[in-house]
Amino acid sequence: MGKAWFTYGPDLLEGKFLVFRGYMKVNGHHYRTIWPVPDSYERIEIIDQRQLPHRFVTETLSTTGDAYTAIKDMHVRGAGLIGATAAFGMYLATQTAREKHCHYDLLQAAELLKNARPTAHNLAWAVDRVLSEVISCSELEEIRKRAFEIACLIADEDARFCRQIGEHGSELIKQVWLKKEKQQVNILTHCNAGWLAFVDYGSATAPIYAARDAGIDTHVWVDETRPWNQGAKLTTWELEQEGIANTLITDNAGGHIMQRGEVDLVIVGTDRTTHTGDVANKIGTYLKALAARDNNIPFYVALPSSTFDWKLDRGIDIPIEQRPGKEITSIDGLSENDTIETVRLTSAGTKAVNYSFDVTPARLVTALITERGVIKAEKSAIHAMFPDCCVST
Amino acid sequence: MGKAWFTYGPDLLEGKFLVFRGYMKVNGHHYRTIWPVPDSYERIEIIDQRQLPHRFVTETLSTTGDAYTAIKDMHVRGAGLIGATAAFGMYLATQTAREKHCHYDLLQAAELLKNARPTAHNLAWAVDRVLSEVISCSELEEIRKRAFEIACLIADEDARFCRQIGEHGSELIKQVWLKKEKQQVNILTHCNAGWLAFVDYGSATAPIYAARDAGIDTHVWVDETRPWNQGAKLTTWELEQEGIANTLITDNAGGHIMQRGEVDLVIVGTDRTTHTGDVANKIGTYLKALAARDNNIPFYVALPSSTFDWKLDRGIDIPIEQRPGKEITSIDGLSENDTIETVRLTSAGTKAVNYSFDVTPARLVTALITERGVIKAEKSAIHAMFPDCCVST
Repeated sequence: MGKAWFTYGPDLLEGKFLVFRGYMKVNGHHYRTIWPVPDSYERIEIIDQRQLPHRFVTETLSTTGDAYTAIKDMHVRGAGLIGATAAFGMYLATQTAREKHCHYDLLQAAELLKNARPTAHNLAWAVDRVLSEVISCSELEEIRKRAFEIACLIADEDARFCRQIGEHGSELIKQVWLKKEKQQVNILTHCNAGWLAFVDYGSATAPIYAARDAGIDTHVWVDETRPWNQGAKLTTWELEQEGIANTLITDNAGGHIMQRGEVDLVIVGTDRTTHTGDVANKIGTYLKALAARDNNIPFYVALPSSTFDWKLDRGIDIPIEQRPGKEITSIDGLSENDTIETVRLTSAGTKAVNYSFDVTPARLVTALITERGVIKAEKSAIHAMFPDCCVST
Repeated sequence: MGKAWFTYGPDLLEGKFLVFRGYMKVNGHHYRTIWPVPDSYERIEIIDQRQLPHRFVTETLSTTGDAYTAIKDMHVRGAGLIGATAAFGMYLATQTAREKHCHYDLLQAAELLKNARPTAHNLAWAVDRVLSEVISCSELEEIRKRAFEIACLIADEDARFCRQIGEHGSELIKQVWLKKEKQQVNILTHCNAGWLAFVDYGSATAPIYAARDAGIDTHVWVDETRPWNQGAKLTTWELEQEGIANTLITDNAGGHIMQRGEVDLVIVGTDRTTHTGDVANKIGTYLKALAARDNNIPFYVALPSSTFDWKLDRGIDIPIEQRPGKEITSIDGLSENDTIETVRLTSAGTKAVNYSFDVTPARLVTALITERGVIKAEKSAIHAMFPDCCVST
């Protein structure tokens, strides 16, 4: 049994939380993307996703600063996993917080973590959730215990919600499969909204894994997803580990294969979705939504409710992260010497602008796949499905 | 004066052809992208574009096989330059053709060259043009001389047509510039339809260079253009050489910057355009046309008439080249040791499909910019502008 077969400690959790092991596999072993180190639960282990697919390396986070760096520099990425890492980052803050100034220290940690990446809604959501649960406690020891419980709860909930997204979404795939008389269903996805982007299962990939478990034959077109190449590096690797047929394409190719009738449906994830149904996701998603619409192909967005922004009415108001231009002008990969090397693709002086996300307007989204079911990307439908989450505006 | 300041020899050309030097510049020196080696005109010189932007290297083509390889393996690329290289490739065939079997040998050479790349219409057009001019000659010496003349004519004509495209297209830029009260005009382009893709000036870039010469301030958004990165490697380099402001973006970003109002117009080239106005161009062009339409941004396609396919009625019937998947899974760039190295971006086993072009339907094209003027992407307009070229179908 590998170390990642970790079950959250019932001694701390008082039996209140879902306890399950990772579902997804790496080299045949079940893994989650984040877990407390079993010895004392004082440190947190993640997969350093920058090294995939060439190396499978885990990394230990000991401080809030480590968690901040892991999020900001994309050791971890993806809506759900950013949220879970931030939650555990708050837990790590309780370990260094000063007895007499612990509330101040936790607020400082929250501020730091929230600034790691601006677009992902799960980040602030998770930090605030931990904060709101511990802020009423006065004893540091109690705060520590409670922060750990909540971080574990957030991680467990993320995995559970993704599993439920899988159940609802696989029904959509099944309908296409039956309509095609059980011929292979071709699904296009952009970026990585797989289990590597969440704690387990993934959002966009969960329906594919659930369909596989139901005996439905799928094939996934994987957009390489420039500039960070999450598709080429992570989604293909993840699907290969799970034995799901897949083909890598450039981000440019999606429209063409839709025109050729080679895509049955599109499923993507999202980093933030307004309560009106506008979807911020990895840059380029909007172009695929336009192509899907032009070719009458369903365009689905899969998300746990933690990704909804209940305060923003318009997608255009979602803050869009701008990352260094160097992520476009240089790239790293495996050299012939089996070392990871960085090469420059352009002239030294080439100026690049690197927007990380774009916003797909609700009008281009066929439906949202949430943990509670499939709904239209409309305010009324979203509020009706999540009356307990939405805030009056 | 560098060797590329070549003027086609009046001794051979009998003063019949336009003789002008390259317009575009490399390190301050005028260059064309292809020219006969001045000593005896028996060999042809090209720029090996695979090495740009890291190295400016020229290559000598001595045989038809060299020309075939240069086209197929993309030492040269782009509609007009593929045509000119193929024309000179036919000239090279006359040098090795057997006296008694020269027509047979030339037909063989034509067959070889035409198969180098399937989508570019200028390729077959140029080969057939040389062939039709020499097939009636019986003397090999006359065939050689005539083939050289026609190849030079095709190259000169390509440059002249591109210059005229520039004149017509710059008027469109000027209109936007005046409407913006002489604020900088933002133009998005995909791939490289610059002077590197033609003999000189370029198609999509010609209006930008002409606008610059007319004192109009432009800024170009350059799509990197995966997988071959013609935008990142060639267009940025070319624009930098000419002192045109430019910013590199991922192919994914175009829709987002259009939504933000940061694009005034789109100009792209084409490898083949049907006489009904459907446009085959580098994969991903269709996605930009969709985004332009969704944001009410004009989408122009610049082309010399040699790119029109007068026989195809439907863009869907244009053959789309499929290149090796390895162009997606691996990439080369400049290492820290200043050597050009190839690195692998994916797992070793990742399967990739690499379509090189897509088709933008005429309905998404605002207008075509040709050497004779700006016309609608419609059969009636195209035929009215080119009554001498179109064939009755």
